[in-house]
Amino acid sequence: MNPRLQCLRNSLKAQDIEGMIVSNPVNIKYLIGIDAEGILLLTRRENIYITDSRYIEMVQSTLTIMDEIIVNDIKDVTSEDYQNFFTFCENVGFEEQYVTYSKYKEYMHRYRINNFVETENIVEKQRVAKDKEEIENIKKACEITDSCFTHLLNFIKVGMTEKEISYEIQRYFTANGADGLAFDSIVASGINSSKPHAIPTDKTIQKGDIITLDFGCKYNGYCSDMTRTIFVGYVQEYIKDVYNLVLKNQKQTLEEMYDGANTKILFKMVDNDFKIHKYELPHALGHGVGLDVHEEPVISSRKEILLKENMVVTDEPGIYIPGKFGVRIEDTVLITKSGCEPLTKSDKGYIVI
Amino acid sequence: MNPRLQCLRNSLKAQDIEGMIVSNPVNIKYLIGIDAEGILLLTRRENIYITDSRYIEMVQSTLTIMDEIIVNDIKDVTSEDYQNFFTFCENVGFEEQYVTYSKYKEYMHRYRINNFVETENIVEKQRVAKDKEEIENIKKACEITDSCFTHLLNFIKVGMTEKEISYEIQRYFTANGADGLAFDSIVASGINSSKPHAIPTDKTIQKGDIITLDFGCKYNGYCSDMTRTIFVGYVQEYIKDVYNLVLKNQKQTLEEMYDGANTKILFKMVDNDFKIHKYELPHALGHGVGLDVHEEPVISSRKEILLKENMVVTDEPGIYIPGKFGVRIEDTVLITKSGCEPLTKSDKGYIVI
Repeated sequence: MNPRLQCLRNSLKAQDIEGMIVSNPVNIKYLIGIDAEGILLLTRRENIYITDSRYIEMVQSTLTIMDEIIVNDIKDVTSEDYQNFFTFCENVGFEEQYVTYSKYKEYMHRYRINNFVETENIVEKQRVAKDKEEIENIKKACEITDSCFTHLLNFIKVGMTEKEISYEIQRYFTANGADGLAFDSIVASGINSSKPHAIPTDKTIQKGDIITLDFGCKYNGYCSDMTRTIFVGYVQEYIKDVYNLVLKNQKQTLEEMYDGANTKILFKMVDNDFKIHKYELPHALGHGVGLDVHEEPVISSRKEILLKENMVVTDEPGIYIPGKFGVRIEDTVLITKSGCEPLTKSDKGYIVI
Repeated sequence: MNPRLQCLRNSLKAQDIEGMIVSNPVNIKYLIGIDAEGILLLTRRENIYITDSRYIEMVQSTLTIMDEIIVNDIKDVTSEDYQNFFTFCENVGFEEQYVTYSKYKEYMHRYRINNFVETENIVEKQRVAKDKEEIENIKKACEITDSCFTHLLNFIKVGMTEKEISYEIQRYFTANGADGLAFDSIVASGINSSKPHAIPTDKTIQKGDIITLDFGCKYNGYCSDMTRTIFVGYVQEYIKDVYNLVLKNQKQTLEEMYDGANTKILFKMVDNDFKIHKYELPHALGHGVGLDVHEEPVISSRKEILLKENMVVTDEPGIYIPGKFGVRIEDTVLITKSGCEPLTKSDKGYIVI
């Protein structure tokens, strides 16, 4: 059987759950490699994927006998079939953080489920440690992101709007082998850089501006995420202390990221150093990256998690001075046995365009 | 009080619901005009909007005293406050088609709600008939869409890829006053036009191609949606019968759209005419358009709804011949007392570029 499905079945078994309805399309893509509209059922003995006529041909040609997945066209599935899928299943799991209350009730009724139980992100937890193929895809997404950054350094000119730069990022990605954007790009110049979640505006780039570029693409469904803060014309003196402090902490965090590192301590180290200098870190220090651009684990003060080999996470400290400017520097990073390997490799020193 | 909130309160009262948690951001935008991350509570006596520090300033400056909405910063709301919001509320409503099962449980616990009841799209139903301001916004979105189409007729050239055309649509929209895309544009040329939901590819435009362009923008949050099927160089003879049949039905449907028209009959009329010619209509004939590009009502065989004055819907028959080509023609249409007014006005005859 498909090893990812086998692994999920083992985890379910350990929790006495005999069946599961997987409806989150990202989890389905992870488990069986299919990117379509449909639902995956893990019944007692079978793996069943139900989709509609638009996708049947593509799904049939993607799956192999080795996957052990039965594909059904939704128009051939009778209400009796639905009622029989989970016969003799004591507990059937569902994704309580994805399924709406109304779908929850609909499923219970349609499948005649007695004990419909929460699975506490069982698939998302499995997704946290990446396998070889996943890491290759993320590496490729990071490579395209690095080359996009190099391209932008030549592309960005005084007088251009933030929006124009954000379109160019999207154009570059799709013209250079990526599936598309991993998330809406942030292009925040001058005072706009003081907002961590700025949306590109019609503001034009001016000499003396600082520009925060936070962007990433998808490759075979896998994301990259990188931020660089660059300068137009020259570096304003009052920015340097903040830039140096952010960069120092971004690099120190890379030193401290390894199999076994505690996420809460990682966050605290940066936040404490910022506080010594009268600043603070107003968002998480990092997050997992994979099929979703934001996934487990979150590196913050809220939860203590130990990093593990083959996790892919971001390292993105930032300081934001309201009404003035902001600096954020971010890499996507692979955790290894002995340390970590940054997968985005663009220069982090002062870059003046 | 804000009239949309007052209207919702009246509907809730009629259903013996004394409070409501509104969490769908589109419904919040509709009710109080705020586009941020937050939650709207309709308690027995007050309207409370809870958001975080990123949005407080913007929210305070948008709302007026007339709105009668109390704004809270989430960091100042204690667990006691949460427990007191719905004191003495017999029934509290929630959006069962938006709220996940896990949020449902979290809300029940956090707000100490005894009877947490489904509201069956109460806000979405209110959104179906548009007011003056909403219609103005949709008209403006449709105008920009028409002018984008005119622009595309000059822009599209043999050798260009579908993807390049889709980027140009996005660029044009944001450069011409729209907020952005209402949905991912469909640019499907040649054989790709046979798929109703085609995604733009690297296929280049060829002489003799048919091209389906399905696109729309947002203006002040409100959507437009238009499809035109055009020709490159010349019109292939074998396409004409299908094109004429689709166009005839699109126009006839416009004749039959008025206050009181039955959506199921509208669908059946087109589907029957297609069947007489050995084709069929494989998707809905239309859908509501507003803050969401797909909203109530759906014009299909599934449900019988009577169109009403000030609804905005699409009229989009299409015929798709697998492996060959497809034709779809679509307008966004305002229902009036005596008939309807197409809000997208681009030419629907044979357009050869």
